[in-house]
Amino acid sequence: MAKPIAGPEIERLIQLLAKLPGLGPRSARRATLHLVKRKDQLLAPLAEAMDRARANVLVCSNCGNIDTRDPCTICSDATRDQSTVVVVEDVSDLWALERAKALNAAYHVLGGVLSPLEGVGPEDLTIRRLVERVAEGGISEVIVAVNATVEGQTTAHYLIDQLAGFDLKITRLAHGVPVGGELDYLDEGTLSAAMRARTAF
Amino acid sequence: MAKPIAGPEIERLIQLLAKLPGLGPRSARRATLHLVKRKDQLLAPLAEAMDRARANVLVCSNCGNIDTRDPCTICSDATRDQSTVVVVEDVSDLWALERAKALNAAYHVLGGVLSPLEGVGPEDLTIRRLVERVAEGGISEVIVAVNATVEGQTTAHYLIDQLAGFDLKITRLAHGVPVGGELDYLDEGTLSAAMRARTAF
Repeated sequence: MAKPIAGPEIERLIQLLAKLPGLGPRSARRATLHLVKRKDQLLAPLAEAMDRARANVLVCSNCGNIDTRDPCTICSDATRDQSTVVVVEDVSDLWALERAKALNAAYHVLGGVLSPLEGVGPEDLTIRRLVERVAEGGISEVIVAVNATVEGQTTAHYLIDQLAGFDLKITRLAHGVPVGGELDYLDEGTLSAAMRARTAF
Repeated sequence: MAKPIAGPEIERLIQLLAKLPGLGPRSARRATLHLVKRKDQLLAPLAEAMDRARANVLVCSNCGNIDTRDPCTICSDATRDQSTVVVVEDVSDLWALERAKALNAAYHVLGGVLSPLEGVGPEDLTIRRLVERVAEGGISEVIVAVNATVEGQTTAHYLIDQLAGFDLKITRLAHGVPVGGELDYLDEGTLSAAMRARTAF
């Protein structure tokens, strides 16, 4: 904007909101207006929630999950099967599996995938801590639930190498047709995998 | 989620962010993760910006604009033509016109449109204040820049009635083909209006 039309506080809020994923400059302006029109109902509670999150959120030193306690709620949950560890790339994957109620088990968040191109090596991920957890005992199965991308699969093979010496079941997620998916829209790799892994009715 | 997997601070942040326009539950989770992973770079500055906006943002008692001063930056700007007042529905329309550098004039923000169905009457908008501004003198033109919707046009006609007694030029935005627009995709109303208002090369 050529001329200032609102105070710097409003401009700053727009700029910061535009850095959120899913919000661009235009939607950040809409969100800012929405907020300043709802000072008491939304803006104040949101500012307070952010302050609290900033003060209280930390990374679980055991599994890499994000929570307000360490060890995290999942690692401390005695009703979960702590002998089964689902290895995921990111906390968002952990949340997705929990929403799906896929398994009542423990997790290990890698914090990314190996990517030589982007300079991400094993020491940038929580791989050493995963090997430590297995070495400490009590874990009977590691489910490698990384994304089905090239980097994800490279990371999976590296993990399997690192865990080779332990008496451990190592599994991965099944490939196949997504529930509700239409064959016509699926790639050949998925269709071939689904065909190879076909099951009896 | 059936089981708690993160602290209440994180859940609360997700819930509040999901109330922003443009963010649903899924993108609110993504935004929350993005924020808690960037505590110092983004979460803390954003919390502070919100606190400042909450404390400082107010509605201009003259024109209904949102700013951190009253009268607002635009009403106080001596380099603007304060004798021309652009009447808009919402602050977002004011911002849009300012981004377009459409006119270096003053504004009047109605705060909505007349809508009997939604129970919005003249007393819910800043129409009385607009009439006062005109009665106070110094305004020679009112440009009614409400949206080209049924409610917008109803509101425009009500405004024109209210301002009928004053020695005043009342204008509205031109209808026509949007710049860059393709005729094939435009509705008949717009095309007819553009044809009627055709201009010489």
